[in-house]
Order: sequence, then structure tokens, then C-alpha cells
Amino acid sequence: MEVVVGATCPPALLALRPHSRLLVRGFRCFAPSLSLLFASSAKHRDLRQRVASRSSGERITAQPSSELRRKHTGGIRVAEDEKLRSLRELFSRGGIGIDAYIIPSQDAHQSEFIAECFMRRAYLTGFDGSAGTAVVTKDKAALWTDGRYFLQAERQLGRDWILMRSGNIGVPTITEWLNEVLPLGCKIGVDPFLFSYDATEELKAAISEKNHELIFLFDCNLVDEIWGESRPKSPFKPIRVHDIKYAGVDVSSKLVTLRSELAEASCTAIVISMLDEVAWMLNLRGNDVPHSPVFYSYLVVSSTAATLFVDTSKVTEEVMVHLRKAGVLLRPYEAILSEIESLADHGAKLLLDSSSVNTAIVSIFNSASNRNPYGSSLNKVKGNIHHGIPLENTPQNDQSVHLKGHNILFRISSISLAKALKNAAEIEGMRNAHLRDAAALAAFWAWLEDGVHNHSYLSEMEVAQKLLEFRREQHGFIGTSFETICGYGPNGAIIHYRPDPESCSIVDDKNLFLLDSGGQYVDGTTDITRTVHFGDPTSRQKECFTRVLQGHIALDQAIFPERTPGFVLDVLARSSLWKIGLDYRHGTGHGVGAALNVHEGPQSISFRYGNMIALQKGMIVSNEPGYYEDHSFGIRIENLLHVREKNVPNNFGGISYLGFERLTFVPIQSKLVDCSLLSFGETKWYNDYHSEVWEKVSPLVEGSAQEWLWKNTRPLPIPHQ
Amino acid sequence: MEVVVGATCPPALLALRPHSRLLVRGFRCFAPSLSLLFASSAKHRDLRQRVASRSSGERITAQPSSELRRKHTGGIRVAEDEKLRSLRELFSRGGIGIDAYIIPSQDAHQSEFIAECFMRRAYLTGFDGSAGTAVVTKDKAALWTDGRYFLQAERQLGRDWILMRSGNIGVPTITEWLNEVLPLGCKIGVDPFLFSYDATEELKAAISEKNHELIFLFDCNLVDEIWGESRPKSPFKPIRVHDIKYAGVDVSSKLVTLRSELAEASCTAIVISMLDEVAWMLNLRGNDVPHSPVFYSYLVVSSTAATLFVDTSKVTEEVMVHLRKAGVLLRPYEAILSEIESLADHGAKLLLDSSSVNTAIVSIFNSASNRNPYGSSLNKVKGNIHHGIPLENTPQNDQSVHLKGHNILFRISSISLAKALKNAAEIEGMRNAHLRDAAALAAFWAWLEDGVHNHSYLSEMEVAQKLLEFRREQHGFIGTSFETICGYGPNGAIIHYRPDPESCSIVDDKNLFLLDSGGQYVDGTTDITRTVHFGDPTSRQKECFTRVLQGHIALDQAIFPERTPGFVLDVLARSSLWKIGLDYRHGTGHGVGAALNVHEGPQSISFRYGNMIALQKGMIVSNEPGYYEDHSFGIRIENLLHVREKNVPNNFGGISYLGFERLTFVPIQSKLVDCSLLSFGETKWYNDYHSEVWEKVSPLVEGSAQEWLWKNTRPLPIPHQ
Repeated sequence: MEVVVGATCPPALLALRPHSRLLVRGFRCFAPSLSLLFASSAKHRDLRQRVASRSSGERITAQPSSELRRKHTGGIRVAEDEKLRSLRELFSRGGIGIDAYIIPSQDAHQSEFIAECFMRRAYLTGFDGSAGTAVVTKDKAALWTDGRYFLQAERQLGRDWILMRSGNIGVPTITEWLNEVLPLGCKIGVDPFLFSYDATEELKAAISEKNHELIFLFDCNLVDEIWGESRPKSPFKPIRVHDIKYAGVDVSSKLVTLRSELAEASCTAIVISMLDEVAWMLNLRGNDVPHSPVFYSYLVVSSTAATLFVDTSKVTEEVMVHLRKAGVLLRPYEAILSEIESLADHGAKLLLDSSSVNTAIVSIFNSASNRNPYGSSLNKVKGNIHHGIPLENTPQNDQSVHLKGHNILFRISSISLAKALKNAAEIEGMRNAHLRDAAALAAFWAWLEDGVHNHSYLSEMEVAQKLLEFRREQHGFIGTSFETICGYGPNGAIIHYRPDPESCSIVDDKNLFLLDSGGQYVDGTTDITRTVHFGDPTSRQKECFTRVLQGHIALDQAIFPERTPGFVLDVLARSSLWKIGLDYRHGTGHGVGAALNVHEGPQSISFRYGNMIALQKGMIVSNEPGYYEDHSFGIRIENLLHVREKNVPNNFGGISYLGFERLTFVPIQSKLVDCSLLSFGETKWYNDYHSEVWEKVSPLVEGSAQEWLWKNTRPLPIPHQ
Repeated sequence: MEVVVGATCPPALLALRPHSRLLVRGFRCFAPSLSLLFASSAKHRDLRQRVASRSSGERITAQPSSELRRKHTGGIRVAEDEKLRSLRELFSRGGIGIDAYIIPSQDAHQSEFIAECFMRRAYLTGFDGSAGTAVVTKDKAALWTDGRYFLQAERQLGRDWILMRSGNIGVPTITEWLNEVLPLGCKIGVDPFLFSYDATEELKAAISEKNHELIFLFDCNLVDEIWGESRPKSPFKPIRVHDIKYAGVDVSSKLVTLRSELAEASCTAIVISMLDEVAWMLNLRGNDVPHSPVFYSYLVVSSTAATLFVDTSKVTEEVMVHLRKAGVLLRPYEAILSEIESLADHGAKLLLDSSSVNTAIVSIFNSASNRNPYGSSLNKVKGNIHHGIPLENTPQNDQSVHLKGHNILFRISSISLAKALKNAAEIEGMRNAHLRDAAALAAFWAWLEDGVHNHSYLSEMEVAQKLLEFRREQHGFIGTSFETICGYGPNGAIIHYRPDPESCSIVDDKNLFLLDSGGQYVDGTTDITRTVHFGDPTSRQKECFTRVLQGHIALDQAIFPERTPGFVLDVLARSSLWKIGLDYRHGTGHGVGAALNVHEGPQSISFRYGNMIALQKGMIVSNEPGYYEDHSFGIRIENLLHVREKNVPNNFGGISYLGFERLTFVPIQSKLVDCSLLSFGETKWYNDYHSEVWEKVSPLVEGSAQEWLWKNTRPLPIPHQ
């Protein structure tokens, strides 16, 4: 499954970013005074009480969004108008006083998959696609989503909602729209926990054109207010220790590395808010959100202490011992806010990643620093020098901006990169998990082929369910690593298709069938796509499939110098399609966590050329070119690859040359290959791969699965051109 | 021959640019007050007199730099100390008052090849490589150049000079060095005609860290002062009309297009200073600098007038009639300064390309605008609104910066792109020139092969000279399009090698011979590299050559969607080398003018990923992968390609798919191809290409040249893998 790095920011918000981060930072000093945007610190205390009350009481498991959809779209449309009316009533309540409210998809940790209790945008709008941002003014309500969800949003949104088709010509961005529909000088409210610092800075800059102000509502999330009693409770399942034999490096060592980075950056503490980063740092795994083994938490590491902020009811005795051993303290999740204030009171200098840390953390730290006499004298002066411009000490000047620049060092998370560079144990776990996953898939494909040939009329949903059952039989299986994309015929052309129980297709032998799925195992995470035909593919389908395969092979076989960013290789996966005027509208590769998030940064392989992060030894990336013929069929071939040094006969420039080791070992259907298009080298690749698949996976399967594997790993004829 | 777009800016200055242009622009408002940097307008008048006196008097032709070198390096070292002493004496002269002086390689038009009278850095330092910047303080003198010239600079620089090896670890940039060696608050002088506006803005920002000021010395170039009577006179050769049958579009039409752009940008005039842009706009060609058919001039186009500023003694009657027909007025070259002042006086809004226009033009315009009561009232207010920040009207505030933002619109030159998109006549001219060039090369290679086999002991210089003679025999030949790179054996590994008459090698049959050369013809410009072996190549040489050839073929055969930037394709030319751990340290392709500069932008194909300009229909690019084994041999295979629409069976995304048409038709030596490495498709490409070479070029040659062509266009055996 493909994802753009940074895609946890919904496309609608990405659309806010026409300029580089640097440019936006340059605008910072022109943004409206932050002091006007902050709620009082008394309100922070209210917030902490609110969070505390939320985490006690009745418990409920996070549900997949398909469940959620049944609940909400089954209701009566009029109910949605009620929600909007209730929301707007809150606009004028004392202490709020806003003219518009933005409701994003995110939780407070910029997670890709979120717990149901945080699905506020879905609750408010009825639209439950994974990406979308709702904006409500006193008389308008609009929802921005991208091309994947236009049809779904049309179906799910009530009459009072305007659907904004992001990316279509003439469709304004959120801020363009706000600047257009609101009179000058309005107040636009947001829940500061749900926006990264970068996102609010960009918002502020964009709306300041019309003198609008961004109001941070620390006290309450307005959607939660109207959701009331029916709002699902927070997730509660226990956290578990991720065994050192899979993690490879113990927590103490990771803390030593992180602290040396803190020292190097002359910072006194780091606040880690990305859930996979916390889980990786502490060798812990959780079960709070679908598909990702993470748990809601913050981790604060200083030179002398490390503190995990988490719902302590999830912490088992085993986890407690594990944390104690590494010297990690435990505090309640909601205590993060008092911790931030306390850090500010003690003159801490924070290391933060502005693209992931929520703006509430930054604001609270800055407000508290302003109260701190140490911060408001010495640092202020330094801050001015740091920026190189004169700043008069008058109330009009926004000193907090400059203080921020000095008491917080914003830097891209080093944990993100450290986590991406898998150690030997993590790679070994990934290899093993992939072999068991391959065994499950061999059994699954044997079952499905038989079912289709016996006219079992299996629906896409049933097929996805059965796949889950086959995976469950494997040792160490935990769950899906993302929602299975299981598309027959035209459904395969919908890149992010999810079968709907009421409307999904029967998997038949008349068209292509695309299956993109993955598993979370105790030792690794998988993500694989195969496209098959159970009958007779057309020559068009074979040509398209073969060209996708050629792109897949070209990327798989690439060797490249150290320091090569992933986007450089993207063309290798596309050029065979380009030769006949075809292409695909998604990236070619994303990072994958080791028994962690199936989509992770910082690397990617994409036609979007902004990500300069080099592919490095130990990284895992997907290789998933595709081709999609609207209303007809979809093709994607995806393996996971491990970046490793290649033993080449030269090393020009005195550097290493890197290449890939395949982790995925599942046959690629030979029926769909037009052998006349393949070169000798490509045919050899195909045959070598299938020989390796048989060798590695056949010992793990038996009976019909083994028989299927044998049949599907036979070599192609060598071309005689 | 390879060049990085933007390479007319010397590497030492490029090293000043760690940040993006946007970031630098963001700093603009923090730069020191411009008013302190400007010389008085009285000085402008002196300058104009100086320029005027320079363009009369004795005339001299521009000489190739090898001639120049003989003159300067043959002298006695002590003479250089004299130059430094004289230069430093000027530092304290009245009206100058500087602590350091920067001497770049450029002329006032950011030309790649410059007239000898502007080779001030070479005169001062004795180092005559094409790239380098000298900096002289009261007690130090340093020269920055890049890896191509380290050895040459070591040889040519006197004892008083420090050689700064740009790009080597620990070597400071120019501004880092200045900030280190000068006490706080110094005055650093430059000739503002020799720096682009962008370059001085970056300089200012960098030196402001130590409170240094950049002083624009409009009055005199200090090197010219010490050069005195011995300074070569300005070029004088006549300008000629570039026939409409080669130009394709008449001047009036080009002016209409440019004026519509002016109107769209709400500007009243554009100042064009790049010499190839002036030549292209006016369908004129000149002979002022080596290798490029351009002439020193400025062109100012407003909605109602177009004026060419040029030494009118170069304007023939034919050119006069041609210009009159298009309504273009003539004024002396040096009148550009009064024109700029006059434009400011009339409240003009200028459209300028800040990367090419010299900072003198910008400064003079801004100074004059400040004097203009219209400019200093209405526009100032607008300027403030435009920047969105309050600006108090006090003397401390640098209003000119804001005025600049309003009275000048900086935008990348649209003429650069228009010029790059060749029309049908230009393409036809390029095709024809390449065929005649191919005929010359066939005769040349036949001659050289014979000479080597008959032990004629031909030196690299003699070979290059003979090549020129063969080209001269072709219709419409004008001259070389760059200095011939003619490297036998280890010399071939020096990427920008130029043979030296005193030390160059004999071309023999024991090693590889690399020849990169090009011609200027009346109808087109060529640039071709071939590498050959007249004896028995080693298997190592064959493997390297074949992998370079595979990269050449992969790029040649690429098909890609519209809007693809050139850098995306760069990997295609490298991946065959990468597979065995080899690479090359230069870009893969540059733009080429039609009977104009051999290196032009805005497109490029390079591993430097900054150039987002898409390859577009009508562009010409070189395809020149290589491999260089230090102290051993060099390999490069270069053809020119024309970007054109490809007739593909699909058009996914509703867009065009582009590819290349080859313009160069000269055999690639089969002896150097290791056939076992080539795929069927690559062998077919090779054979098809050579069959096309024979078909197109054989009618243009006879005798030994035709015989050579026949032998060298025979097909390779088809592989049976």
C-alpha cells in the first residue's frame, strides 16, 4: 500500500503549503501576536481535568472505520444539521468567541490510524474517509478531501455541506476559502492539540492576509462537546514489551544516543509525540489504534530523566519492570501539560520536531517561558541577536516568537531516521515475518483460486476476511497492518479502494483482481500487493501488467551510490510504462516499520521530488509500481525491500554502492506476463525470484498450498530474440 | 561538452549559496542600508565617460585563453607583486576607501566566454582558467577556483597568492574567509557591473554577519586602473543579420510576444542584458567573444519602444535596415545608464531577471527612483502594503529595498525559455548544421586514424587544429562553439582538459582518445564527443565504454510525460555504471542554442536536483554520460538531442509524452563495445543508429572519408543470450 511521507497531514492541509518550509519560517515574524491566540493558563488546567475524566470510565475498543460508517450513514440526514447547529451555538459561548472552526482528521500525535474517540471529523460530517478537513463558519460548512474520496464524500455528506474537491482546478484551499467567505478580521478557532506547529504557522500566515486571527481553544474540542455521552471512550488495551530479540537494541542504549544528540544540540529536553517513535524508543508495543501497534503517550527525555506519559492502567507489571530497568518514569498521559510548564519554569531548552509536535505543546511551553523571569530577560536579548533584527520592547511586538526561536530548537526528528535504519535483529525479524506471511498467502491464494474455479461467489469482503484467517494461523500474528485493499475488476482501479459489505463485488474469473494487504507480527510488519487473473487476461491487461512488472524489476535491481535520495530511482519504476504513454498517480515506495507502522518516514521513492532523504543501509522500502485503467481494472505489484550495501567491483568516489534485498516471497502470476516484452535480464530476474520463493517458502507449507506454490514458481521460457 | 546551467557564476560564488533563492530573498530586508553602498550619481557620469572612451581607439580581436596564458605566465613573477601593490594603493584613494576588493571572472553580461579586455581576474592573478574569483585585502590575496583548475592555478599563481581549493573540506567560501580575516565593520569593494543582483544580495547578507559593507565602485574598475595602457581594446567586429530562414520568427513578432508579457506583468519596460538573449530577440549575431556569436549590448523594450545599446561602429547598413524594419532604435552601449535613469525618472516599472542583470543597473534605477518625487510618495506606500509590514518613514529605514520590490519585478527571464523552445526553422538549421558537421568529422577521423597508424606523431594541439580545418571546409562554418577538449590517455580523464602547446601529448594507438568539440555554423551549433582507441583497448576500457554507451542509449530512448524536469532522467544515464560501482562527476545534459551559445538554459539533465524546468518540445539537450579513470583514461559519448512529442499508443493523464530526436550522426567506435554486455534492444539501437548515420552522411562525403564511414557504420552481431 502506497503512502506519501507526511501524508498523515490531510491533503487539504497539504494544499495550504505552496511554499517551502523555509519560506513559511521566514514569514513567522509577520504573524499576528501569539498572545492574542492563547487561552489563559487557567484554561490549561481545565483541559487537564477534561483529559483526565476522559481516560477513566467505560471502555471501548477502537473500531474499523467501516463499522463506524454503518453507524453514521445509516442515520437520518436531519441529524447532521443538528450537529452543525449545536456546533455553531458554541461559537458565541463565553471564552470561545469564534467565527469559524476547523476540524481536521488528526489526533494529538499526527497518527495515520486513530482511535475512534478522536474521529471527530467523521462524527461531525458523516464522511469517514481517512483524509479530510471540515471547516464550519456561522453560515457555511465545507469539507475538503482528495480524489480518492470524492464519490464517498458525495454519498456521505449531508445537504448542508459543501464538498471541496482538493486538487481540482478552481477549488480553493481552506485558507483561500476562509479569506473569501469571512469578513475582514475574523477569529478562526482550532483545537491546538490537533495541529502540528508547522500547520498552525502556515494557517496563521495565510489568514493574516485578511487580518483573521487563529484562536487556540485549549479548553474544549467543540465537536467533543456536541458528541457528549455518545462519544466512544478512550482505548484501554494493555501495553506489551517488544522483546529485545526483535528490538535488537535496549532502551538504555537508545536513551544514551538520544541524550548525546540533546547535548550536541545544546538542548535540555526533547518531547516525543509521534506514537511509533515512543514505541520504538521504549521497545514497547500497544493496541490503541487499528493496524499500528502503538499506544497513546508522550515521552520526555532530558539529560537526567526519561518520563513516559501514558494512561497508567495500560501499564502491566512486565512493562513496569521493563521501564524501571531503563530508568524510565511513569506519569499519567494528561500530566504532559504540567510537565511542559515545569520544563519552561526551569528554563529548559526543548528540542522539537515542528512537523509532528502539536502546537498546544509549543504554545504552553512559550506561555510558561514568558512568565519565567529567566526566560523574559536574558533569553529575550539573545533571541533578538539570534534573529539579527532590532526589536523594540513594546507591547506591540510579539516577543514570544523570538523567545520561541531561542528556547526551542526545531529540528526534524532524529528518532525518525534512527528508527528507519533497522538493526540486524529488526531485519532478521522482518525476514522471518515475511516468510510466515508468504506461507499464509500461498495457502490463501490456493484457497481463493479453488473457490473462484468452483464458482463459490466469494465477495471481496469475504476474501479479505479469509485472508485474515490464514494470517491468523501464523505464529506471532497480531493483526492487519492496514485496511485490506481487495479490488476486483473496476474496483482495482480505485487506488485506495476498501470493499463495502453492502456493495462490494464478487471475485470472479472475468477480470483482474488486485489484493494489497499486510500483517503485523510480533517480529515484523508486512505489506504486499499481487494482481491476478483467474480466467483469461486480455492482451491489453498482459501488456500493462508486464510493463508494471518491468518497472518493479528495474527498481528491484537498481544499484546506486550512497546519498541518493529515493526520488532519483522513481523513474526506473515508471519508464517502461512511459514508453507506451502510461503512468500511475502514486508514489513508488514508502518506508515500513519493524513490527511497527506500515507507513513510516523519512525516506520515500516518489515522483514528488521534495524529499531529499537518502536511501540508507538498513532502511525498508516498498517497491510498488502500478497501472490503473478507470472503470476497468487495476494492477499493482508490491514487494518490500531492505536497503543494503552491494558488493560491486569498483567504488568510484570512495563510497559504498547500495541496492536491495527482497523481503517478500510470493509468486507473481506468470499468466499475466507477456514474455515477448521481457528482456533476457528481466526473464532471468523473474525465474530467479520464483526459484527463491519456492526454496524459502515451500518448507513452510503443505498440501494444496505447496502444490499451488510449485505451480506458481515455474520458470518463464528464456527469450530467443 | 558539459556545463551546469548557471555555471557562468564561478564556483567560488556558487559556494556562497547554501540556501535557496527564496531564503536569500527573505533576508533582503535585513541587509545593510543600500544608501551607504551607492556611489553618488556624479560618479555615474564619470563612469559613462569611462565606458565611452573605452569603446573608441585601437581595436583588437578577442584571443583564445591559450594565447593569453603564453603572454602572462611567460612573465616574471615579481610583476604580479607589483600588480597587487598598485591595486592596494588604490584602496585608500579618495572616493574609494575600501579594505578589500573582489575580482570575479565575469563581464557585465554574465557571459560564459568573455572578451579579453574583460579578463581582469586573469590579468591580475596570472591564472587564466575559465572559473575563479580573486579577493585582495590590504595584506592578503586569495584565489578561489574549483577542482578542474587546482593544478593549473598552482602553476600560474605567484607566491603572494593563496590558492583556495573550492569544494575541498575545510576550505572557506569567499565570505567566510572575509569574515575571518577582516576586522569587524570593513568596507568590501566590488565593480557592480560584474555581479548579478542576486550575487550582491547574497554577498551583502553573508558579510553583514561581521558588519562589513559592500561598496559599489561605479567609478572605476580597479584592475583596469592598474592595467592601464596595456589593456586590450574592446572587440570591434561587425554585427550581422541572422537570416529569417534560420531564425524562423521575425523580430517584430518576438517584440509583440515580449510586450504582451510586459503587460501581463504590469511592467512598463524590460532590460535584457544576457548577450545571447539580445542576439536571439533581434535575429542578429556578432563576433565579440570567442565561441559564441554574440555582441556586447543591452536591449530595452517598453510597450512603445525597443532600443539596442551597442557600439554603433559595429552596426552595418544591413543591420541598420533590419533594425529599422522592426522599429528598434539604436543608441551607444554606454547610454544604457542614462536610459535606466530616464526610465526611473518617468516612473517605469522594470521587469528584470535578478540572476543575470548586473547589480549596477538595479542600483542606478533605484537611486534614480528615490530622487523621483512620484516614486518617493505613491510607490513607497504601495511598497509597504505589498510587503505587509509597517515601515516607519524615518531615515534609518531602507526605503529603497521596498521601493525595489515595487518598481522592479524580478522574474526569471521568459526570453531564456522562449529561446530554448526552437521553432521549425531553427530545428531544421540545427539538423542541417549537424549533417555538415558529421561530414567534417568523418573526414577528420579518417585522416586521424590514418595519421596514427602511419606514426605521424600528431600532438593533441595539431589534432585540434586539423579538426578546425576540416570544419572550415563546410558551408556556413563560423568557428568553434567552445575550446576543443582533445585528450589522449590520462589527459582524457581531466574533464575540462585543454591541450597546452608546450606540454600536450602525442595521439597514439596505446590508449583511449577523447575528443569533445563543436562548431558554430550560420544555421546551427554543434557539440559532440567521441572516444576511440586506435590500437587494442583493454577489457577494462571496453567494459567502461560499453556501460557509458548503455547510459547514453537509455537516455536517448527515454519517453517521459510532459512537465518532467531534466534531472528525473539523469539516473537513466548513470544506472549502468552504478551497477559496477562507477559514476561520473558532471551533469548529463545541457541546453544548446540554435546558431547561438553552445551552453544555454533553462533546462538541464543533471544529478543536481535543483533545476525544476521541464524538458519541453523544441528544446535541444546534450546526452553525454562519461567515465574518467584518474591518470589513466577518459570516456564520454555525446550526441545532441531534440525534444519532441512521441507518438505513443496511450496518453495517460491526457497529456503528451515526449522523447528525443537525434541530431548528431557520427559513428561510435564498435571496437570499444563489449557486445556481451549489450541487451538485444541496445544492440538494435546501435545498429539502427549506424545505419542512419550511413544513410544521412555518406552522400556528403567521398573517398577516404566515405570509406571510413562505411567501415565504421557496420552492425554489431545480434546477441544470442
